[in-house]
Amino acid sequence: MVQVSVIGSGNVAHHLLKAFGASSEVEVVQVFARKKTSVETTNPNVEVIEDWSLLKNVDVIIIAVSDDAIANVSEHIPLNCQLVVHTSGSVALSALNDKNRRGVFYPLQTFSKAKAIDYRSVPICIEAETADDFQILETLAKSISEYTYAVNSQQRQALHVAAVFVCNFTNHLYQIGSEICIENHLPFDILKPLIQETAQKIATLSPEAAQTGPAKRKDTQTINKHLAFLTAENQKEIYKLLTKSIIDHGKKL
Amino acid sequence: MVQVSVIGSGNVAHHLLKAFGASSEVEVVQVFARKKTSVETTNPNVEVIEDWSLLKNVDVIIIAVSDDAIANVSEHIPLNCQLVVHTSGSVALSALNDKNRRGVFYPLQTFSKAKAIDYRSVPICIEAETADDFQILETLAKSISEYTYAVNSQQRQALHVAAVFVCNFTNHLYQIGSEICIENHLPFDILKPLIQETAQKIATLSPEAAQTGPAKRKDTQTINKHLAFLTAENQKEIYKLLTKSIIDHGKKL
Repeated sequence: MVQVSVIGSGNVAHHLLKAFGASSEVEVVQVFARKKTSVETTNPNVEVIEDWSLLKNVDVIIIAVSDDAIANVSEHIPLNCQLVVHTSGSVALSALNDKNRRGVFYPLQTFSKAKAIDYRSVPICIEAETADDFQILETLAKSISEYTYAVNSQQRQALHVAAVFVCNFTNHLYQIGSEICIENHLPFDILKPLIQETAQKIATLSPEAAQTGPAKRKDTQTINKHLAFLTAENQKEIYKLLTKSIIDHGKKL
Repeated sequence: MVQVSVIGSGNVAHHLLKAFGASSEVEVVQVFARKKTSVETTNPNVEVIEDWSLLKNVDVIIIAVSDDAIANVSEHIPLNCQLVVHTSGSVALSALNDKNRRGVFYPLQTFSKAKAIDYRSVPICIEAETADDFQILETLAKSISEYTYAVNSQQRQALHVAAVFVCNFTNHLYQIGSEICIENHLPFDILKPLIQETAQKIATLSPEAAQTGPAKRKDTQTINKHLAFLTAENQKEIYKLLTKSIIDHGKKL
């Protein structure tokens, strides 16, 4: 049994607490939040606190707050030599105050409170300063997920950037697709099977092999037709830049 | 029973023939290809031809060839007053020769021969010049798919552009994610659950509600860190442009 406490009440903390709650190998001892009322927990054994001095010794203290608050929060912890980890993709392990043993427990997924998630399929990227601490974090990660990876701070930064491309930017392309549908009195639903299939394709094909479309075919006629069709300046610019990038990639092969 | 013939041997023809073959309501009479050997059919009742003069009268002749060949192929058909449709997202109905009754049968999906597809979930966009012909195409579409839509040529053009954003461009973002992983000695697999979840999220949330990430949060510190991390010029440009577009969208709300 791994005893953990979680600091934070945002999306990441919310989904982590749900996953820990469903695991028989983890005991959540405390949840710290600036406002107790922002914590949703249905487990009466979990103590919700908003006073730093009440924080207890546990196996792992997880800081799940916004990136710019991590360093500050790690200083506020009134304990020493505890294993304290953050959950951020873009903050170095060294940002944590070194009065405690430091680590990272980064779940690589997009979390929205409104959408339930299957934590078993969320890759968890672990970093620690000692083999013993790595072991503790790996046990904790495996208790909620099937996919755990040893990822150092530099690699984690790379992953975080890659995640922005495949998740945040991809979702923005969905939004543009949705806007084009609305402007033309079409339901966005009509694009959803295509969106699902595009994501599912790369489970078995490389993105390179899965690439289709006018840019891939260097079909200048269709590309020009599309550019003439688009009126929003940002859509036009994105179309041009991504088309150029696909064509340039083709040249390298 | 709807009798159809298919002209073409590319990805679209390949998957259409498979779907028709699996339907009890459709009979594929002929497949025309410039090279007979390029047609994969396991049904001995289907006649594969490469001579225009052998083309028979059927309920629907489907031209599934590249966009720039559609007009030419429609001229070559040595028949009159037949219902002849193409399968393209970006070619107008009027591109078809008017010696025959014209229509469009556009399956909105990304097709690769190497990847099987569940045609029941492929939206089929139909256009015809008369209500009777629309009816025939709708019966045909419903025999292989659960989702059929009446879509005029202007709307189809819009859909085709939207599809480039949500499919072709999205896949290119996957490719960039994959490249960043490779450069940093990480398996691309680590990003796949995130890619799947990003696509699945918009089944229940609007893309606007599903948006997460540094641009959405206007987290300039992380954005600058990412830009400093990226070395490939095209990746940097794409990062900047899409980040700007997400931030500008946020301002509009």
